[in-house]
Amino acid sequence: MASRNGSQARKREDHDTASDLEQLFGYNLKRAYIIFQTDFRKALGPDGLGPRSFALLALVVRFPNITQSELARALGIERSGLVAIVDELEGRGYLHRVAVPGDRRVQALVATTEGSSAYADALQRVRDHETELLADFTDDEKKMLAHLLQKIRLREDD
Amino acid sequence: MASRNGSQARKREDHDTASDLEQLFGYNLKRAYIIFQTDFRKALGPDGLGPRSFALLALVVRFPNITQSELARALGIERSGLVAIVDELEGRGYLHRVAVPGDRRVQALVATTEGSSAYADALQRVRDHETELLADFTDDEKKMLAHLLQKIRLREDD
Repeated sequence: MASRNGSQARKREDHDTASDLEQLFGYNLKRAYIIFQTDFRKALGPDGLGPRSFALLALVVRFPNITQSELARALGIERSGLVAIVDELEGRGYLHRVAVPGDRRVQALVATTEGSSAYADALQRVRDHETELLADFTDDEKKMLAHLLQKIRLREDD
Repeated sequence: MASRNGSQARKREDHDTASDLEQLFGYNLKRAYIIFQTDFRKALGPDGLGPRSFALLALVVRFPNITQSELARALGIERSGLVAIVDELEGRGYLHRVAVPGDRRVQALVATTEGSSAYADALQRVRDHETELLADFTDDEKKMLAHLLQKIRLREDD
């Protein structure tokens, strides 16, 4: 009986947007992000960069000598979470730590040639995966989506 | 020197959307979701439900006797990740596990009166927090955001 109730529940969930969750922006944002994240991992393959490593490498390639504090701030994540990602990228030979003259406590990060090249390749795959995921979107819908997400992000500094 | 480069980098990052990341939908979806998640936790307080516990409780309240497999499917998460959340909600006295007649291996979930009431209270707080977060959005922008996120979610069954 529970199982019958359950499958009715599932049908309602799938087709009627019956639960309160479906009306919540936070829940829908998360579900939408999960779709991108899952597809990102598929696009970059099991040995490829994960979304966080990719984002960190993007900033190191773009801003040579960026420090870990600056990275944490730019990515909106904790410094403690950053170290494992930096270690992973260093292990792959994609970046190295350099000393900051005048402040022995701080290390800055610089991408290697291999890192820059792996990043360029990954970026192309990510762009292709996004194009494919949003294949049903018109250009106006894409622009609107980018605009609305940016508008939410204005709250980042609150 | 690295530090000076870094702070230029940060300024560019903040004001110029100079990095490739800012052009990616996946990255912007994640940043937008993080804002909702952080504010959700603030709205529900340090002892309140987290987003995942809230979502699970929402479905148990809405669909009495739902099974864990059905929950995992509806929420798009692994069954293994579900058990800890069910345990937490059971520990709070918000739901209990019931036997499914005819199948001893399966347990269904039912919300307690306290669970239903805690959920109703949490839902109101979540709705208020979303209203506040999107205070700068027009009704049309909210409708468009909901529409575009739903459109992404059409890819969930792929």
